[in-house]
Order: sequence, then C-alpha cells, then structure tokens
Amino acid sequence: MEKRNLYLTNIPVEEALERFQNALSPHLKIENEDIEVIHSLDRVTAEAVFARVNSPLYDCAAMDGAAVVSAHTLGAGEASPLTLKQGGDFMAVDTGDPIRPPFDAVIMAEDIQEKNGGKIVIRSSAAPWQHVRPVGEDVVQGEMILPGGHKIRPIDVGVLLSGGITRILARRRPEVAVIPTGSEMTEPGEELKEGGVIESNSRMLEALVRQCGGVPSRFAPVPDEYGLIKERLKDAAERFDMVLVTAGTSAGRGDYTVHALRELGEVAVHGVAMKPGKPVILAVVNGKPVVGIPGYPVSAYLAYENFAAPILKFFSGVSGLPEAGAPVTGMPVVRAVLTRRLVSSLKYREYVRVKVGKIGERLVASPLARGAGAAMSLVRADGFCVIDQDSEGVEAGTEVNVALCRGLDGLENTVVSVGSHDLILDVIADMMPNVYHGTRLSSTHVGSMGGLLALKNGEAHIAPTHLLDEETGVYNVPAVKKLFAGRRMALIKGVGRAQGIMVKKGNPLGIAGIEDLSRSRYVNRQRGAGTRVLLDYRLKAVGIDPSGIVGYEREAATHMAVAAAVKDGGADAGMGILSAARAMDLDFIPIGSEEYDFAVPTEFLELAHIRAFIGMLKHPDFRRKLEELGGYTVECCGEVVFLP
Amino acid sequence: MEKRNLYLTNIPVEEALERFQNALSPHLKIENEDIEVIHSLDRVTAEAVFARVNSPLYDCAAMDGAAVVSAHTLGAGEASPLTLKQGGDFMAVDTGDPIRPPFDAVIMAEDIQEKNGGKIVIRSSAAPWQHVRPVGEDVVQGEMILPGGHKIRPIDVGVLLSGGITRILARRRPEVAVIPTGSEMTEPGEELKEGGVIESNSRMLEALVRQCGGVPSRFAPVPDEYGLIKERLKDAAERFDMVLVTAGTSAGRGDYTVHALRELGEVAVHGVAMKPGKPVILAVVNGKPVVGIPGYPVSAYLAYENFAAPILKFFSGVSGLPEAGAPVTGMPVVRAVLTRRLVSSLKYREYVRVKVGKIGERLVASPLARGAGAAMSLVRADGFCVIDQDSEGVEAGTEVNVALCRGLDGLENTVVSVGSHDLILDVIADMMPNVYHGTRLSSTHVGSMGGLLALKNGEAHIAPTHLLDEETGVYNVPAVKKLFAGRRMALIKGVGRAQGIMVKKGNPLGIAGIEDLSRSRYVNRQRGAGTRVLLDYRLKAVGIDPSGIVGYEREAATHMAVAAAVKDGGADAGMGILSAARAMDLDFIPIGSEEYDFAVPTEFLELAHIRAFIGMLKHPDFRRKLEELGGYTVECCGEVVFLP
Repeated sequence: MEKRNLYLTNIPVEEALERFQNALSPHLKIENEDIEVIHSLDRVTAEAVFARVNSPLYDCAAMDGAAVVSAHTLGAGEASPLTLKQGGDFMAVDTGDPIRPPFDAVIMAEDIQEKNGGKIVIRSSAAPWQHVRPVGEDVVQGEMILPGGHKIRPIDVGVLLSGGITRILARRRPEVAVIPTGSEMTEPGEELKEGGVIESNSRMLEALVRQCGGVPSRFAPVPDEYGLIKERLKDAAERFDMVLVTAGTSAGRGDYTVHALRELGEVAVHGVAMKPGKPVILAVVNGKPVVGIPGYPVSAYLAYENFAAPILKFFSGVSGLPEAGAPVTGMPVVRAVLTRRLVSSLKYREYVRVKVGKIGERLVASPLARGAGAAMSLVRADGFCVIDQDSEGVEAGTEVNVALCRGLDGLENTVVSVGSHDLILDVIADMMPNVYHGTRLSSTHVGSMGGLLALKNGEAHIAPTHLLDEETGVYNVPAVKKLFAGRRMALIKGVGRAQGIMVKKGNPLGIAGIEDLSRSRYVNRQRGAGTRVLLDYRLKAVGIDPSGIVGYEREAATHMAVAAAVKDGGADAGMGILSAARAMDLDFIPIGSEEYDFAVPTEFLELAHIRAFIGMLKHPDFRRKLEELGGYTVECCGEVVFLP
Repeated sequence: MEKRNLYLTNIPVEEALERFQNALSPHLKIENEDIEVIHSLDRVTAEAVFARVNSPLYDCAAMDGAAVVSAHTLGAGEASPLTLKQGGDFMAVDTGDPIRPPFDAVIMAEDIQEKNGGKIVIRSSAAPWQHVRPVGEDVVQGEMILPGGHKIRPIDVGVLLSGGITRILARRRPEVAVIPTGSEMTEPGEELKEGGVIESNSRMLEALVRQCGGVPSRFAPVPDEYGLIKERLKDAAERFDMVLVTAGTSAGRGDYTVHALRELGEVAVHGVAMKPGKPVILAVVNGKPVVGIPGYPVSAYLAYENFAAPILKFFSGVSGLPEAGAPVTGMPVVRAVLTRRLVSSLKYREYVRVKVGKIGERLVASPLARGAGAAMSLVRADGFCVIDQDSEGVEAGTEVNVALCRGLDGLENTVVSVGSHDLILDVIADMMPNVYHGTRLSSTHVGSMGGLLALKNGEAHIAPTHLLDEETGVYNVPAVKKLFAGRRMALIKGVGRAQGIMVKKGNPLGIAGIEDLSRSRYVNRQRGAGTRVLLDYRLKAVGIDPSGIVGYEREAATHMAVAAAVKDGGADAGMGILSAARAMDLDFIPIGSEEYDFAVPTEFLELAHIRAFIGMLKHPDFRRKLEELGGYTVECCGEVVFLP
C-alpha cells in the first residue's frame, strides 16, 4: 500500500480551469496552415476572408430570354407589337450570360414570340436594367466573405469559390495523444481474465477529440510500470500538441501518473471539486497541456468536457479560451422541472445525468443513475443538471437548468415512460421510430410504485406497473385507483409474464420454490418493485419470515441485474421474469404469472405518440418478437381498460 | 432557340416530394455493412445492439481500500478498533478489483489505519455490499445498449466496447455522384473567360452530402453536349446510389438534362412551386434517385435540402422517409417577429433568408436579399422564414416561424446593427469576437434611413447612419432627433469619411466634380442612402436637375456594388467612399467629408456587447486597420454623444 495519492485537492471547477490556463498561457500558441477550399468543410478560418472577384463577374441576364436596348423598346405594347432583329436589336441570352452595351435589359423568354429569320416580336417595353443582375450583386471584390474563427459550412465552400478563392489560411488541427494506462486494461475483443477491464475510455476520447476538430493518436495501453508510463508521457508531450492520459489518476496502488507528471513538468491541479470526475489531473509538460482523465467512464467524459475540450477548442480556433463558469462547455441550456429530489454534497459540484421529457406544456428532467461508473446513464441522458458546489441539493418540482447533450427536436413526439422495467420496453423503443415515424419511447426504470408516483406528479405519460393487491390478488387496478382517486385513469393492457426464481444452470442447490430460498444466498429487488411485492405476498402466504433469508436486504434495480448477480455467482437465487433468465442462460422455477400493464391518465390517450405506443403493442412484428423472448402471454395486449 | 423547357410544372413542395418518393419506393433499399466499433463515430446502427457481457464484469470494489467480510467487522467503532490481518481478514483492493466470497464489502482507504506486518485497523463496521459495485450495475448482458437507427456518439463507442461489442451492423454510407454541367463552367483557379462562371455548386453539394453521412464523388464539369450529358448520367446511375446533376434544369437553350433523364428513366417532377429553386428535376434512372439541381446557388441549396437531403437521410438510416411538410427538413424552428413586410406570390412557397437578433426579450427576424443568386444571403443567414404558397405575404411585426440554419447560442451577446454599410463594420465583425470573447456583430445593410426606422421599431441595437440635414448641413443629429422625438437617444461617434466620385483608373471622361456627371453613365444608390442624400444636396446646391443624369434611376445597394459597376464598365461614375474606390482600384474625385455614426437608444448603452462595440471603436488594432484602408478620420471615434 504505497504511493497512494490519498490527499487530492478539492479545487472548484472554475478555479481549476483558471490555474490550468495560467500554467499553459506562456506556452499556448495557435498555428495556421494553408488549405484548399474544396477540402475546407468544418475547418476554421484563421483570418477574415475577402472576395477576390465580383459575383456575378459582370452585368448578366437574370432570366433566359433576349437582351435588348431598353430605349429602343419604348412604345411596344399589346396593340403595338414591336419586331426586333437578331444582332443589332436583340441577342438571345440564357440566365447568367453577360449583358454588354448597348444592351441594358432582358425580356423573358415567356414574353417573346419567335419569328423566322432570327426575328422576335415583343408586346411590352423593357425598363432599363430589367432582369439584369448587376456585377457584384452577390459578392463584391474586397468584401468580407467570412470573418476569422469561422467554422466552414457547405454554403461557405460555394461562396468562397465563387469569390475567386481557392485556398485559405485555416487553423491547424491540433494533434492529440490518447494514452490508456493500467495493467488490467484488455483490448476490446481480447479474452478477459479475472480482474481484467475492457479498455474503452481511450476510444471514447478519440471520438471526442475528432468531434472537436482534433486529430487523435491512440497509444497501446501502458502497463502500471513507473518507468514506462513516464517515458510514454515524455515522448507524447514532445510529439503532440496535447496529451490525454487515462486512469491512474486516483488513489490506487498503481497510480503513477501524477508522480511521473510532477517529474516531467508542472502539475497545476490534482483533484477538482466535481462529481463525477474528482481525480482529474491538469498538468503542463514541455509546454503542452496534459489532462489526466479518471478511469470511470462518466468521470472521464466530464473531465474531458470541462478541461480538455476548452483547450482543444482554443487550438481549433472556434473561440478564445473560455470564460470559466459554463456548466458544461458549449452545451445549450433549457429550463426543466426536476422530478425527484436531488441531495448533493457541499464539497462538490455534481453533474447529474437526466432524461428530459415534455408532459403537456412542461419540460421535466428525470435524474438517471448517479454513479461515476454508470456509463449507460450517459448513453441514455438528454442532458446534465448541474448542482452547484455550495448547494445541498434541489427539491423535486424545482425548475432547474439542464445543459443539453442531445437535440430536443423529437420531444413533442416522445412517450415518457417511468416505472417497472421489462425487456419489451427495449423492443418497443427500438421498433417504434421505424413503424411510427418521428415517435420515440423514452423509458426510465424506477420500479412499479416509483413509476405511478412519477405519473401522479405529471412527470410521465405512462407508468409500466405490475403491482399485486395483497387483499384481492388483483393486479394494478386497485393500486392505480387508490393512488389516483378522483382522476380519470386507464390501463393500457400489456403482457402476462411468468415470474419465478432464477438459479444457476443445473439448479445446483436444488431449489424448488420459495420455501427453499432460506437455503440460498438471495438477491432481492428494491422496495416498491412489483417482483418484491410478489415475493413478500408469497412468503407471507406460506408463513416465512423474510429476515431469515440471507441477502433479502441486497437490492438490484432490474430483472436483468438480478439475473447477472446469479449468473456471476455472487448470489444463488433471485426472483425475476423468464425472459431475463433466458437472456442470461439461467434455470427458472416458475412461481406464477403476473400482469404487466401501463397506467395512463385518460387525457393522454388521444396523443398521437401514445396512440402509436398502443399500436406497437398490437403490431405483428412486436408479437413475433415476444414469442422469441418467451414467457409472455398477449391475450389483451394493447387493449385500453378505463378505470371507473 | 430550340429545346427550351418553357413549360415547367408548378407542383407544391409536399406533392413533389411525394411523387418522387412514390416513383422511388419500388427501388429504394437500405444496405448495411459490418464495421468496427472503434471506427463507428457518426455511423448509424442498422439494428438494436445488445450487450454481450456485464459491466462491471463481476462484483467489484467501488473505491480504493480493503475488501472485508462484513459480518466479521461487526462491533468495530471509535472506542473499539478492530485489527484485521491481510489474507484471511482483508484484501487490499483498488477501484474495479473483483470482490469475491467470502469478501462482501469494501472499507475506504481513508478510513483505514495501516500497521506493520500486513495489518490494518478499522474504527467502524462495514455494511454488507458497501462500496461494492454489483456485477452488471451499468450494463447487463442482453440489455439493449442502442436502438436501431441511432447515430453513434463518442460515449456510445465507449459503452459498446465495455459491453463486449467490437463490431456492429451499420447502414452503408450512400455513394452520391455530383455532376456539374454547362460549357460556361470554369474550374476554380482557372482563368475566367468572358461568359465563364466559376463552378462552385458541385463543391457545396459535395460538402452537404458529406455532412449528411454520404460519400460524394464529384465529376469534372460536363459541357453542354446532349450525348455527353446523357452518357454521364447513365454511367452515374449505374455506379452510384444517388445522382445530383447541377444546372441545365431551367429553360435555357443548352438545357439538355431533363431530355436526357426522360430518355434514361422517369422524370417524376420538373418544376416545383418554390422560390428559389423552382426548376428542380426529380427523376428515377436505373432505380436510382436523380435530382436535377438548379444553377443559382440559393436554388441549389434549397433544392438539395428539400429533395436530396431527405432521400440521403433515408439511405443513411437516420430516420424513415420524411413526412412531407417540414419547412426545411430537420431544422429547428423558433418564433421571431418579422422586421419588414414580405410580399410573396401565390404561385410559390418562398424561402426568405433572415438574420435573427435578440432585442430586449424579443427575437427579431430581418429579411436578407431574396434573389436566387444571392449566395451571400445564405452565408449571412441565421435561418429561413417560409412563406406558404397560399399566402400573399406577411406584414411587418407579425410573429413568424424561422427554421434555423445555425445555432443561436451567442444571440444574447450579439450586437444587431441595421443601417448604412461601411467596410469598418466588416472589420469590427471580424475583430470583436477575439477581443471581447463571446460577443458578435450581426450587420444588415439597408441604408441610413432604413436603419433608423429599424431601430425605431425595436429591430436593432444600433443604426449606422450618415444623413445630412439639408437645412443645417449637420450630420445625423437632426435626423435622429426628428425621428425619435421623445425618446432618449445617443450617437456613438464613428468615423469621418471622404465621399467622392469613383471613376475608372485614369479618369477617361475627365470628370472633375458633380457638374460633369451629366456627361457620364451614372450608377446611383438606393433611396434613403446617405450617399444619395449627399448627391441630391450637392446637385441642388449647384442647380442641376437629377433627371438629366443618365443612370440616376439605376440603384446599387452598397458603396462596393457601385464601385464594382464602375470597375466592370457598366457605368462610368458613381458616388461612394474612398475605401471602396481603393478596394476596387478606381480613381476618386473627393466631394466632401461626412460623419458616419451609430444611433443608439440610451437604454442599450449599458449592455455588455454594446460596451464591447464601443471598446472596439477605440481599440488600437481597429485604428491601425482604418489607416490601412484609408480615407477615414477618427477624432471622436467611440465617443458617446447624448442627444438632448
């Protein structure tokens, strides 16, 4: 247990960025290069670009027709047609053809009657300069076409070329070394040994650098050997404009990065008051910025966005060095109502990933998993809710700023589902946009009761639920009626699901039913989950005390997470649905069937995207997929039951 | 005058797209290909992607520290420290290390006191599963990571790899032939002959195709020879997924495209009720979509966006075939107040380019040049205001939809200037974002009086103006006081400018002053332009009747446009400023000096971006640039004069 970096600093985000920039500013310089306009898409102009020629180049015809001398057409009219001779009187022109003296006007082809012998007849006079585009009408020589620091779009390519410009001075694209470290790192596709980790962060960083206009070079993973790590960092800081080094930034035993950076250059910051992302390192080696990126994927993403992206954008020339304080650099911000209370530490600024939905006229933001390792929360996220360092949290129902990481174009047509998870939600989310173009299903998984509460608070359109009423043995109807007293509600009927006990293949402990659970190490679902309600109901029925079951307090959030715990051997048994057991190749001891339905306020039933959702439940492709998955019955699937 | 396509159809945009899609739908098919995840950025998934492994792969340490057996730590406390031995009692772990039975909890490094001989002391007990990340917490094997039709982002690359996926099925990128036609087409950089046109549209289209996920192949320009054009089209429709053929779509004499397409396949539409963009051709050859793109740059852009982009997006798999009716496909829409009346024909849907500004709390949309050839209007545009086919126009002050073609992030910090043009506005627009980070100058040129009216209507922050009061001979102050009676106004003093007559190098007509203008072909400025006011004032002073000046009615919109007309020989003389004459290498006969200032309501003076604008006027770099341009005096530049 040596060389642990136990005592990271806890510097506020803005101050950290400022320290980094101060350490860098004597060294940072922008370089430019001369490039061809035809290859300039997405490049950034190094200086203002001025037109070299006029566009159009000369007075020219704005229409197809005949060029005429306007003064000679005076008097032409319906009653007094005028005949003009080719050459002296008129010249046939197409759009864009030059109009030269004596000609000073164009008559449209549609207004011309052609005669033999190169003659035409016109029936109205031409005003001077009619249908003539004057020289330089669009671009005048010497006029600024683009300012400096402008990212070139397709239309700019066209106008630059029209303006006589074939080469421009652009910012050189910064070259960025991406160095993964850690002896446990295993290249994707290679066999994973116990303790091994798939090296994926460097590939995400490569893509982020590319998106930012940089040119990434990814190194092979460097094992935890001090000399090797130091050598690679030294080499990279010599050859590249910037270095991103992943993992090895925390307090682990093999974390050599910061020591190596201290010997090679200056460590401006090690430890920032942000969460996730705290153990970031900001250093300068050989005058080059080096960012030590923490190993957890969400930490890695946020460390990149907050500290690497601003420096890269500076190199790329999109803008000057950012002013500190942007929540997550460059993301557009919307206001949305927070659906759940967020408690946060005064020690950190926290970046909570949220899904954003539109319920009625309100934008709502639902927090996703908050762990630094929850990479899927980034995949699912629509944006970030940033909780300031000096805040202890935000109450539910508060309007908050959400920094968006994806466009919200489709929001009007997105079904917001909050509640119990089932694989059929994944299937619908995948199929629905193709079957009902433009619609989307956004699904958050908080268990049945959590979903109904979200629905009640106006945070969802539908709540997938499978809640058994212990008194009547009836599913869903009693729970919804009780919670939504006085409100007009319906159930969109979903599927019947086989619930049971999942055990390792071959059922090594010989578990036959819930009576045997006390012989196992169990993994349970969270409070309010329908599966847990069912277990409690059955345990009570047979008179078993849950406290006697080892692992009853161990909670997993979804059927699949329970199945994974059993598969991995950390638990012997867990309750869940057949499709989860099948997906994970586990044995399944059926306990009973349950009804998995969707609670919905009746006012939402007429929304086009809710109708699309109901349509999906009845769709033959969806039914076919259910058969593949197994364990589902679909007698009433897609029917709407209005609750009295 | 043969083979003219005089009679284009006038089919509404939606119907045209529908006809095109109907003609295509028997043929269109999406192809997929297997690609590496590490090269999948911006590619589109062909099907849903499910995790192959759990992440984390096993129960693992969530913190650096010691793995312990929770049951064995019971009773540890501040008063009753517990000593644990390496091996049996605890195991040192770093974040991510596997936690295997009997260990079921982790104690953080910070809460551990190390002793000699591989012993540690703890002072609180560990709850079961504390600081342990359960297997599959982030991604569970079999769980959907991404739906089909999803464009891959950097974070997706990371999560796919973590989920054990190294290759995915993605949409094949469509290959698109871009064929410029026209004997007048001259490659950029080659010498332009009289009647030649720089071929730039195909390069814009290449870039647009690339942005849309396609792979463009640009052909060399094809001269106007029927056989050649037909041969190239046939070849392209065999080898590519889609063909874009530019120009040759209108009623010109050399317009063979549509004839060739009719012989090769089916022309679904020739002529759409849109402006610009009417002469678009939508055809199917060899089962492949062929879009005939009109030659004017704005027409080309709109034809692409409305008809080519949707088909390309279909191939790329970002979404299904679009529903007809999106104003310009895929652009986000905002509401803004129109600053000028727009009259439009009932025959067409018109796409008017607008600049968008934020004045107080209002978004305002100012129309730019409307011609199909006005490519700079696309460069300058923030978006499109779409006037429906069944509308005769929109009154000023109406709130309209604006389809945005650029992000509006910086809008809060953008100075909206509407009024008279001077090159110094270009200079400031270029310099200001670098000197005052985040600020921007958005400038529209409508002449002095037009600018003051815009300012009065709340459509601008500042109005650059140089209006001479004929009675007093005083610049700007009388005009602003008269127009803004009762409102607190100020002038930000700008520059003194030398006004004069611009003539060809060597002054071939020997023009000495305005008395000689009647011997020239003159080019004038538009009504309300300060330069025209000055001319009229001087003509009146010397008793010359303007109607005696040939070309007095011929109007150009800016100093530079006047200079271009003189340079090109279409006119002999025009009034303008010295910097314009210099930029175009013309001779200049001084007429007098004038004051070019910026009218501003005093309430805007405290806005940070207006203060930045004033700062720019005083900036040494700006002053240096003025000296280079020549013809300016700067005694009061940047001073604020409050009008009583």
